[in-house]
Amino acid sequence: MNYRTVINIIGKVLCVEAMFLLPALILSLILHEREAVTGILVTMAVAAALGFPLSRVRGRRPDIFARDGLVTVGLAWLAVSLVGALPFCVSGAIPSYIDALFETASGFTTTGATILREIESLPRGLLYWRSFTHWLGGMGVLVFLLALNPLSRKDSGENMHLLRAESPGVRASKLVPRMRDSASILYLIYIGLTGLEFLLLLLGRVPVFDSLTLAFGTAGTGGFTIRNDSAASYSPYAQWVLIVFMFLFSVNFNVYFLLLMRQVKKALRSSELHCFAGVFAFATLLFVLNTRSYFPDFWDGLRHSAFTTVSLMSTTGFVTTNFDLWPQISRSLMILLMFMGACAGSTGGGMKVVRVQLLFKSAYRSLYRAVHPNAVRLVHLDGERVDEPTVRSVDGFLLIYFLTVAAAGFLISADGFSFETNFSAALSCMSNVGPGLGGVGAVECYAGFSDFSKLVLTVTMLIGRLEIYPMLALALPGVWKGK
Amino acid sequence: MNYRTVINIIGKVLCVEAMFLLPALILSLILHEREAVTGILVTMAVAAALGFPLSRVRGRRPDIFARDGLVTVGLAWLAVSLVGALPFCVSGAIPSYIDALFETASGFTTTGATILREIESLPRGLLYWRSFTHWLGGMGVLVFLLALNPLSRKDSGENMHLLRAESPGVRASKLVPRMRDSASILYLIYIGLTGLEFLLLLLGRVPVFDSLTLAFGTAGTGGFTIRNDSAASYSPYAQWVLIVFMFLFSVNFNVYFLLLMRQVKKALRSSELHCFAGVFAFATLLFVLNTRSYFPDFWDGLRHSAFTTVSLMSTTGFVTTNFDLWPQISRSLMILLMFMGACAGSTGGGMKVVRVQLLFKSAYRSLYRAVHPNAVRLVHLDGERVDEPTVRSVDGFLLIYFLTVAAAGFLISADGFSFETNFSAALSCMSNVGPGLGGVGAVECYAGFSDFSKLVLTVTMLIGRLEIYPMLALALPGVWKGK
Repeated sequence: MNYRTVINIIGKVLCVEAMFLLPALILSLILHEREAVTGILVTMAVAAALGFPLSRVRGRRPDIFARDGLVTVGLAWLAVSLVGALPFCVSGAIPSYIDALFETASGFTTTGATILREIESLPRGLLYWRSFTHWLGGMGVLVFLLALNPLSRKDSGENMHLLRAESPGVRASKLVPRMRDSASILYLIYIGLTGLEFLLLLLGRVPVFDSLTLAFGTAGTGGFTIRNDSAASYSPYAQWVLIVFMFLFSVNFNVYFLLLMRQVKKALRSSELHCFAGVFAFATLLFVLNTRSYFPDFWDGLRHSAFTTVSLMSTTGFVTTNFDLWPQISRSLMILLMFMGACAGSTGGGMKVVRVQLLFKSAYRSLYRAVHPNAVRLVHLDGERVDEPTVRSVDGFLLIYFLTVAAAGFLISADGFSFETNFSAALSCMSNVGPGLGGVGAVECYAGFSDFSKLVLTVTMLIGRLEIYPMLALALPGVWKGK
Repeated sequence: MNYRTVINIIGKVLCVEAMFLLPALILSLILHEREAVTGILVTMAVAAALGFPLSRVRGRRPDIFARDGLVTVGLAWLAVSLVGALPFCVSGAIPSYIDALFETASGFTTTGATILREIESLPRGLLYWRSFTHWLGGMGVLVFLLALNPLSRKDSGENMHLLRAESPGVRASKLVPRMRDSASILYLIYIGLTGLEFLLLLLGRVPVFDSLTLAFGTAGTGGFTIRNDSAASYSPYAQWVLIVFMFLFSVNFNVYFLLLMRQVKKALRSSELHCFAGVFAFATLLFVLNTRSYFPDFWDGLRHSAFTTVSLMSTTGFVTTNFDLWPQISRSLMILLMFMGACAGSTGGGMKVVRVQLLFKSAYRSLYRAVHPNAVRLVHLDGERVDEPTVRSVDGFLLIYFLTVAAAGFLISADGFSFETNFSAALSCMSNVGPGLGGVGAVECYAGFSDFSKLVLTVTMLIGRLEIYPMLALALPGVWKGK
């Protein structure tokens, strides 16, 4: 383990966090939110006091391996969550530190699950920070660092290891040869889309602060809003804007890169995109048909159906209507959508569409092999052969995914909530959605869980956002040993 | 496809079914159960009329391949279920054919899920047949055929393909070189254990007919009884006998074969057995602690806890107490037990303990590989290396298992029952348990589902009992084509 480099990177990440608290501080200063100012100042001091000395530790060897990359990412996300929770706690807005930690991890992991029943009374500075964690977490804290500043002179393997550990998807691909440029391009696309959404919301007369926090929440596919009723009180126009942008942020960012390169054909050929769009259309249609009697007119039903579909598929978790009351077949479909999630290489969570595609191909092949034991059958995707290690690792990933949901659901059931509540809470946290069904349904929150369950779900959110390995690697025996 | 041989075997299976209806017929004749006599006679006539001509079809080529084995087993189980349902339907005991089919498939697959609210008023002949389907289905219809009569002169590949397709487990192993002898030995052990249980129950003054049907239900790990309250009204002694035999029938029969060969050490070395026993002890302990306040004294609590644990793990589904009312953490554990099921090579259902062991080993290896991408790591079990195709096929099996439960749960949710009911019903049918939670809980039944859902669950039970491939192979495009 290259401890010195790991420590150095974590120091830098904390410094970045301190820096990113600045806008929240300024906002609170302007609005004379005294408790919030104290909370944010204390946090900035803590982050800087921890981060600056650590960032002065210089690695002796510049090289880091896959293991170091995973550990770095796991520890960095733990660190930003632990420190990022302080403003809520110190300011008294969320008195319990465990609650604050849950809320902050929910923010950074872009889950959007909240323990707050009453959101609107929070100081604006803290609301800003709460939504901003989505924006930062969506793209990744370390990706941001890479965009600012390559970690070593030779722009090589180590950065790739970090990017791979933090980015969702089957394989992180470099867009351009230099890692730093890839990270920068991704962040520029991200900033551009966020800005566009912000402007379109403003055009629909959504207040500035609402527009900004909604854009943060959509971009990271997070789900926090500044209203108690989530997104229900915004105009139909604003809700349609959200629908469009939740969809856009669920798409693999490579598609946008290819569009920028004017390779339109190549960009639109992705079978993952087609599959995502197909499921979106199917689910919306089923919801529309299934909730005919729930809404006065067709366009209302269509809007709420499309909104709910893309909100769950993108794993954002905005809510316009209490979809927990919909018929059971719709609710079952919601569970399936929450498992699948968004496209790889987007800011969305879940197992990812491409993995579900590979799951079906791999399952079909298992069946084919049982029938024709001697046949050789390769798995193809987008016309290219998927190599065996990738198929195997996807199978392994999915099994660990199910195991994690089962384990988390089992552990939190000690609180005595219903099976539906526990299962959907565990799944929702693992897939970084936010709301679930029943006790954590569209109009409920996570406040009722015990501290133990909140910690379990916090870890689950981190496991889900980092796609399992960085968090679990921290617990792997032997990972801390030697070289 | 070797159609002629497939048809020949199915004909024989139907003839065997007609033969096995004879004791039920005699019982009904003695007791003057007129409707039952008619029902059973009609069924025997139909089975013989279909089966005898088909069994005269002689295969031109004696060789059958894996594909033919799967198709034969799938079709044979469909055939015995479709025909075996007739006595209930013709006699008017279960007026709806779909209900009767569900009940019969539930019997043959050793699920024990019932659509009957009132069981005790059924004619004895039909009750006998209902319980006997468990006994026949537990060991396998084709295994019985093999024990009687090897299907071709050369006792070779084809019989193995059939045995493998019908027997639960990662790999069906021959006990002795000749297939027919293996099947005979297995059936002798089965008959011996069933007889022993029957005697022990008689010794506890359980009425003869109760003892016989309980022994059938335990041996097949089925779960049908002849009482409305399942096994609740039997004496504590009888319940302890059931606990012991449910455990015994959940163990890989190879263990008994080795014990008979006096290879005690080798027999008890199986890590699957240790794992099964360990989970049994853990779950019993958790249930005892969790239900302290539910039972007047410790021994009562221990008995109900051990009974519920082994009833679910063995996938029998006998009930002594309404465990659906237990605290949520116990209920969550029940779901996990139902997923896992019994040992491979037993009559129990579920994913099987050895697959769960391999699941954890394979998951650990995925994690290990993420941390050490270049390391070679093999999977070991019982000190032996598990080859890669086996690990891969287990991964594939488990993924299809989850997909099937999810698909069945989704389809039946159209009926509008709760998520818990649908999910546990789908899982319970897939794992061949019988009862689930909520609407299909310990004191409930499956009568409330629509015909469509009953058909979905019927197929799910068959998929689960035959370990996926034989049933799904029937739907695989191309399986019916050419050579």
